[in-house]
Parts: sequence; C-alpha cells; structure tokens
Amino acid sequence: MALYARQGRILATTGNRDRLAEILSAGTAAMPGCRLYLVMTDPADADAVLVTEVWDNEADHAASLALPAVRAAIAEARPIIAGMDGRALSVVAAPGLA
Amino acid sequence: MALYARQGRILATTGNRDRLAEILSAGTAAMPGCRLYLVMTDPADADAVLVTEVWDNEADHAASLALPAVRAAIAEARPIIAGMDGRALSVVAAPGLA
Repeated sequence: MALYARQGRILATTGNRDRLAEILSAGTAAMPGCRLYLVMTDPADADAVLVTEVWDNEADHAASLALPAVRAAIAEARPIIAGMDGRALSVVAAPGLA
Repeated sequence: MALYARQGRILATTGNRDRLAEILSAGTAAMPGCRLYLVMTDPADADAVLVTEVWDNEADHAASLALPAVRAAIAEARPIIAGMDGRALSVVAAPGLA
C-alpha cells in the first residue's frame, strides 16, 4: 500500500508521560492526509508515549509539521520531552482505517 | 479510552517476511470488535512483521483466536515464524479509526 507510516517512542521527563500524551493527542486531531494518529502508553514503560501514525503520503506528514496546532503542541511538549526515536515503516494492510 | 491495543513484532524465517505479512493480513480482515489490524514492515528489519492492533476490548481479541479464518492463518504462518513478542498497550487517542 502507498500509505506512509511512522512509529515512534517519545520519552517524557519523569512524571509527565500522561501530560505529554494529552498534548500530542490534542494537537494532532485534524491534520490533512493523516489517516491515523494512535497515541498509546505502555504499562511496563512508565515514561514512554508510543505513537503510530499513518498518512496518505510522506509529503502530507512533512507538511503537518508547519500546521499551527502541531507547532503549538511541539512547543508545549518540548520542555517535558526527555528523548525520542522513530522510524518510517511500510504499510502492508490497514483494515480499520477510516 | 477503554480500547484494548496490542503491538507485536513477528520474526519470519529468512526470506519469508512478505509471505508472513500477506498471511496475517488476509486472515485478519474481518474480526468482531477489531478496530484496527495494521500490518507493517520495517525497511531496516528484514525479517520482521510489525502488527498494531486495536480492539473494543480484550475479550474480543481473545475470542478472535478461535475464529476459523484466524486459526487457519496461524496454522499457515506457524512454519515460517522464527519468533515473536508482543505487549498490551493503553490507548490515549486514536483519531482515524473507523
């Protein structure tokens, strides 16, 4: 499938995981070309926010970083981010996406 | 959110990643309570199939393992599975799910 997917793990500063997840969820609700922005936490990983994203294409993902709501969310989240890693993935199937 | 999510990494025997992804995608297309069954591959991880699932609840996920199509997919995939790990996750937000 020609969709563009990313999976990332964003580490919050101690005690701020839920706040970080909240910020990421709110700022990314309506982004052109975004088919999925799944924000999850792991009971066994106290400081990590896990994000799985699916986009129509890589360009839409790149463009989203300039959206006011996304820029504001990144600015708000930055002070409580201790680290992050992510990678682009290929989508084989995605039953369930709207 | 009360949704139930899982993320797993299933290792195929050498050279069988795409076949494994195909089997997993086909066998899991219509499962009651399944909101997302995202099958992905990682260009940097030649043998791995990455699955992100979201379910209405844990019981629906458990029940799916008894579905004929899922049982058939597991039986077909088992010979080309070299290993697997997975974990249950909590969903904070999931814009994009149908």
